[in-house]
Amino acid sequence: MRDLSGRLDLCCINTATLGHRETIERIAERVARAGFGFVTPWRREIDEAHPQRAAAAIRAAGLKLGGYCRTTYFSADDAAGRRAAIDDNRRAIEVAAELGAPLLVAVVGGLSPHSTDLRGDRQAILDGIAALRPTLRACGVTLALEPLHPFYAADRSLLNTLAQAVDWCEALDDGGPRCIGIALDAYHVWWDPALDASIARAAPHLAAFHVCDWRRETRDPLLDRAMMGDGVIDLRGLRAAVEATGFSGPVEVEIFSRDDWWHRDPDEVLATCAERLQRCC
Amino acid sequence: MRDLSGRLDLCCINTATLGHRETIERIAERVARAGFGFVTPWRREIDEAHPQRAAAAIRAAGLKLGGYCRTTYFSADDAAGRRAAIDDNRRAIEVAAELGAPLLVAVVGGLSPHSTDLRGDRQAILDGIAALRPTLRACGVTLALEPLHPFYAADRSLLNTLAQAVDWCEALDDGGPRCIGIALDAYHVWWDPALDASIARAAPHLAAFHVCDWRRETRDPLLDRAMMGDGVIDLRGLRAAVEATGFSGPVEVEIFSRDDWWHRDPDEVLATCAERLQRCC
Repeated sequence: MRDLSGRLDLCCINTATLGHRETIERIAERVARAGFGFVTPWRREIDEAHPQRAAAAIRAAGLKLGGYCRTTYFSADDAAGRRAAIDDNRRAIEVAAELGAPLLVAVVGGLSPHSTDLRGDRQAILDGIAALRPTLRACGVTLALEPLHPFYAADRSLLNTLAQAVDWCEALDDGGPRCIGIALDAYHVWWDPALDASIARAAPHLAAFHVCDWRRETRDPLLDRAMMGDGVIDLRGLRAAVEATGFSGPVEVEIFSRDDWWHRDPDEVLATCAERLQRCC
Repeated sequence: MRDLSGRLDLCCINTATLGHRETIERIAERVARAGFGFVTPWRREIDEAHPQRAAAAIRAAGLKLGGYCRTTYFSADDAAGRRAAIDDNRRAIEVAAELGAPLLVAVVGGLSPHSTDLRGDRQAILDGIAALRPTLRACGVTLALEPLHPFYAADRSLLNTLAQAVDWCEALDDGGPRCIGIALDAYHVWWDPALDASIARAAPHLAAFHVCDWRRETRDPLLDRAMMGDGVIDLRGLRAAVEATGFSGPVEVEIFSRDDWWHRDPDEVLATCAERLQRCC
């Protein structure tokens, strides 16, 4: 397990942590000044018609790209909707490549409208992901499937456990160069009684590792994530298990916190992330 | 799969569905009048010093007991707290027997205060359950372990999937007469990609089956359950899978709905449950 003390160059700030309040140029400057080595931007912050501008600003700040967030939901109520999602996600992959991001995070989408067909909708999502393989390979980008907490199964993601993500990676393996991986976020998986066994299985697929904390009494299932150390997740134990698989990517902080951290001064947020990464993760 | 049309005698009302607004005598009368065969009361509705009074009222209404809700959390911050929980749960088992309930539902508790030790806390809960076996056997009551949605892992239950519940039943099997089973609630498990396989494994252990529905955009993770048919769960498919294992117990409605059904006239709630059980489950 790596020692993160004095090694913020191994750490990444997902821009959601700062509440999407500033331009990517300004954010990159702050993140670099706080000592971090990586930043992961969201699509809303990038002018996708001219991604080279953001890429240049991030490079000029001295940062590398952790990844790019995120796919449009693959689930839709008809074939046209599914095709539109695939087309949009192809464009996101191209932009990720132009930014220099090694991966695009995939949040796959929940049940399609009016559906109760878990199995059919999951298969439709898998088919959508499979259709992206040629673009991923052409661009040299990994699609990092992110299992989301089961709370979001209906409306955000039918990919809900790490074991399922490994199953999907295996199902999507067509024998060609590997282009599908997994983004593991502590917030979504910490509770899973099968987690240790699943991490071992996930070893060849782990592409990203996200941290934050789960508040013991969560006030909002989407936007009440806690700072590392302020919740109940054994983040150090989880990182040890992840790194024992050989994972050597950045440790990325992603905190959605509408009522707390998103109101604070961005430099305070970054300083707290830095301190907690070294002390609690 | 049983046909529920005209067979409300196979169906059960968990009194939580009515919002705990009336005495058990009044509730039993309403539930019987609406045609149901079973009722499952909560401890708060029973005078545990004189459970025979409630038992007589339920019998007089012509109802059977589906079960009794529920255990005190087994998790606590010290040995004295854990012993107190076990003692309290012993009393609940005795009362279940005096009521004539075949089972006590177990909600096992979340992380103990200030703990991040999932594995240790889960083992402490298992030890607490194991200590109840002599009382369960003496009373002829089954402890029905209810896996709760992963959203509640921190504060309500470290038992979070059906697969884990089966693992716990197997771990708690000491070769004596069976006294531990599983209460499967659609609300908690519908999202699980491993559900079909887990139901097959759970066959010898299934003791109770609860229904309600998951609202596509849930407003509160605890108290915003929907009426069957108003959400995204394939309740008929789930009941088919459960009954294919040989399960022949009642289909029990349990709806926590602070802002909707708990405000409605109890007879309207019961009539809606009756109609939806027959049409949507």
